[in-house]
Amino acid sequence: MTSPIYLRDSDIIQGWDGDVLQLIDLLDAEFDRWAANSIILPEKASQIIDRATQSRVNCMPSTLLEQGVSGVKLVSVFPENPARNLPNVMGQIVLLSASDGSTIAIMDAAFITALRTALVGGLAARYLAPTKPKTIGLLGAGEQARMHLLVFASLFPSLRTCYVASRSNESERHLKAALDGRIEGMDIICCDSDYGRAACDADIIVTAISGQSPILKPEWVKKGAFYCHVGGWEDEYGVALKSDKIVCDCWEALKHRGSPTLSLMHQEGFIQDEDIYADLSDLVTGRKQGRESSDDIVYFNSIGLAFTDMAIAHALYGQCALKEIGIPLGQYAPVSIFDNERFASSLNESRNADS
Amino acid sequence: MTSPIYLRDSDIIQGWDGDVLQLIDLLDAEFDRWAANSIILPEKASQIIDRATQSRVNCMPSTLLEQGVSGVKLVSVFPENPARNLPNVMGQIVLLSASDGSTIAIMDAAFITALRTALVGGLAARYLAPTKPKTIGLLGAGEQARMHLLVFASLFPSLRTCYVASRSNESERHLKAALDGRIEGMDIICCDSDYGRAACDADIIVTAISGQSPILKPEWVKKGAFYCHVGGWEDEYGVALKSDKIVCDCWEALKHRGSPTLSLMHQEGFIQDEDIYADLSDLVTGRKQGRESSDDIVYFNSIGLAFTDMAIAHALYGQCALKEIGIPLGQYAPVSIFDNERFASSLNESRNADS
Repeated sequence: MTSPIYLRDSDIIQGWDGDVLQLIDLLDAEFDRWAANSIILPEKASQIIDRATQSRVNCMPSTLLEQGVSGVKLVSVFPENPARNLPNVMGQIVLLSASDGSTIAIMDAAFITALRTALVGGLAARYLAPTKPKTIGLLGAGEQARMHLLVFASLFPSLRTCYVASRSNESERHLKAALDGRIEGMDIICCDSDYGRAACDADIIVTAISGQSPILKPEWVKKGAFYCHVGGWEDEYGVALKSDKIVCDCWEALKHRGSPTLSLMHQEGFIQDEDIYADLSDLVTGRKQGRESSDDIVYFNSIGLAFTDMAIAHALYGQCALKEIGIPLGQYAPVSIFDNERFASSLNESRNADS
Repeated sequence: MTSPIYLRDSDIIQGWDGDVLQLIDLLDAEFDRWAANSIILPEKASQIIDRATQSRVNCMPSTLLEQGVSGVKLVSVFPENPARNLPNVMGQIVLLSASDGSTIAIMDAAFITALRTALVGGLAARYLAPTKPKTIGLLGAGEQARMHLLVFASLFPSLRTCYVASRSNESERHLKAALDGRIEGMDIICCDSDYGRAACDADIIVTAISGQSPILKPEWVKKGAFYCHVGGWEDEYGVALKSDKIVCDCWEALKHRGSPTLSLMHQEGFIQDEDIYADLSDLVTGRKQGRESSDDIVYFNSIGLAFTDMAIAHALYGQCALKEIGIPLGQYAPVSIFDNERFASSLNESRNADS
């Protein structure tokens, strides 16, 4: 049992070796292990703090038996936070040893959540995106849209043009300013909130919007496109109905969540279980084919599975630990309640008062 | 949003004001709030790491809406740990602000778990123990038995004799050595593994044993006794059958757990829902009477509810924060993935290789 360490987002970013493809490989292997029953994945518990704002705290436990790590991500989603200069997504990941239950690490959850969500989209794109995609369209310009662009740009060097459309021109320009010149050979084009323009020429479409009304229209999705759905109700039902294949990270988990479009469609009877082509693990294990035709429209939606957080957190923890990054939290030491003298005296005061 | 702090068990013990009765009052108020629907309590998720040893990691989320705190306890229970000089129970508690989702504190879970379990037993005893109990019998001599003795000794100054019986004489003597002279006017008598001797004269009986076979026999439980069941299968079915009242912290949660005696009895048809007299919240809110006759045998079993952990953790965090105890984990600061130069270069290496 070693001393646990605490890793802030800045520590995690500093300690990471920067290799996106390696982390996608890792997730590929973990989906394989999940299919082989070597991962424990209890249901996510969502606590709605405020129905009006949909502020919530999600609790996502999981155990990676082969990696010997058990843990939880406690993640808050407060949609009103950006307006008060706080992040939308915050929280903590706790990693325990599955050998003796001791704490390995505690880590900020925000960066890992954003990264792993984009990495899962990247893993899906490996199996489902068209060959050598040239154009990506982002609907939404926040942290999650940006992270998807970076992961897809790493995965597909053929991507040369990024269209971005958001509710506000300011956030489009903010994304462009942050990334322009950072991704070699990539033009970033702001669409002045014209979602149709951002989507209609895209080989890969990403919707990552915190609103709860449909933005993406089916007529904007071209033949052969890969559509990566990140948020809640972001697309008209026609998009899924037009798609040749619908793939999820886990349809069983997704269909019981209220907000994603596919879940709404299922509740309202627009799609059935048999309309879902595959879960990601079916592709990873080869039980099902990925993309089979260059004309197919493929729809991907991930609900977010705790084991992907644990896997990425554990990998990044390992890289940070090697570099001795992080705040050491101290070795385990036996304690006694009598180390607190106030307890001892308070205990006996009450006893003496009675005698 | 202030800087979150990390509190080890030793910090928590140091920062605590030592007042047991105040914490029981707090739990009383929280059971009241739970009854008034101002607490969110998702189901506990138990991950069994090893079926043979019953090593497990429990994930227990909860939100105290009035206190404005949401959190989780991730707690490991590894029964083989004591044999390798590690604690049976370890883990972490994470507290987030229910106003903005930011992290308030992260705390070791071991001391709080032991303390709150005994405090819940103490809260039950307030309503259910006989008047001015004189004798307590401990079956089991570990951390949990010891903590119950301390809480009951604080709550009932009339307690003058403690009988203790355990599987090993050594652990009985260890408990006696640790506590002798610490609790004024309390004789601690080792029973050399004679469980009957420890129980038969006791006004309050506590079983806190990690084994999974029944120890306490019904003929040892005298009229008027309060029996506090802490562990799994520790008592013969006859004890509950002989009891005049059975009370739980939450029967609905308890009956679906495999190990406590009451749960086993329910599964096997020996007791029905209507045999449970009350949940603790029924007593706290006054919906049901506590003890009504000095002759009644009252059986209490708590399964452990996450909101009791959150309430105690939040209270002790507050006391530590006032004293500026704990490791500060740093203010929130915005981060960029491009702070990692390896990411930037790795991204563009792959892109240049393709062009």
